[in-house]
Amino acid sequence: MGISIILTGNGKGKTSAAIGTAFRAIGWGFNVLMIQFMKADKDIGEIKAAKKLKGFEIIQTGEGFYKIGKDIKNLEIHQKAAMKGIDLAVEKILCGKYFLIILDEIITAYSVGLIKEEDILVLIKNKQKKMNLLLTGRGASKKMIEFADLVTEMKEIKHPFKKGIKAVKGIDY
Amino acid sequence: MGISIILTGNGKGKTSAAIGTAFRAIGWGFNVLMIQFMKADKDIGEIKAAKKLKGFEIIQTGEGFYKIGKDIKNLEIHQKAAMKGIDLAVEKILCGKYFLIILDEIITAYSVGLIKEEDILVLIKNKQKKMNLLLTGRGASKKMIEFADLVTEMKEIKHPFKKGIKAVKGIDY
Repeated sequence: MGISIILTGNGKGKTSAAIGTAFRAIGWGFNVLMIQFMKADKDIGEIKAAKKLKGFEIIQTGEGFYKIGKDIKNLEIHQKAAMKGIDLAVEKILCGKYFLIILDEIITAYSVGLIKEEDILVLIKNKQKKMNLLLTGRGASKKMIEFADLVTEMKEIKHPFKKGIKAVKGIDY
Repeated sequence: MGISIILTGNGKGKTSAAIGTAFRAIGWGFNVLMIQFMKADKDIGEIKAAKKLKGFEIIQTGEGFYKIGKDIKNLEIHQKAAMKGIDLAVEKILCGKYFLIILDEIITAYSVGLIKEEDILVLIKNKQKKMNLLLTGRGASKKMIEFADLVTEMKEIKHPFKKGIKAVKGIDY
């Protein structure tokens, strides 16, 4: 039986842990799909590495990170992109091809108001029993946590960007 | 410039996040080495998948998980295995071949008394500036956190094993 996993919190490591889980599944010969919400940058390590491995598909449905407040005029564009991600997730969850489906940053998309709580709850509720679903992003709601089987909060203890160290290629992306 | 990362806490996702970080680095063509402390089981997803990718080496130096208290007669065997891991880590850190070295469960090895705090601090202090070092395991000390650039605590919010769900192949290992 498959499980539903939520990786939330303000610390680094949520997407990395999702990718690592995908890597394990691929080791056993299973098919994995990762749909990245909000993200639109294809020049990232996980996309480059996924091309070298059979069985790992990554699809970005985002329009780049939506900056709350500052970016109101583009709200509709980001909402449409997020809903495209939800529609794709429904289709892929129902198709039965995947052992693991990762919906990366889907919870952040909810937290900044691009999608509704119900959009996510429906996905968890309707996942096929044999498959595994992994959702990442800041700000998981109580109901999401209630619906999921495994929840880890990534808590920031120390962040190098605050010391002036920039994002490192091959580590942060 | 490279950074030093600690992933600690009682929640799931520490080793997964380490593997995901390795995957990103490999995407950019960098060499990655993961030394697994305490672990001795080769029938795991990350080892199977690493064989399919160039540039990702995994070496296990453990003798299986050391059960505190119950396993006193084997303490010396586990301590020796952990020290073998430390020696190997020193050698590999100094060799300059790797963009990223992961010392998986090294902090757990410290927490259960197999190695000393100083063994870990020396590694962080002496890592070459251009390389990245990632340490995982429960129970990082204050000094370790002080020495590292990035620290995330993986906090358990909900764990499926408590609901009676067993470890899932391709997800947990």
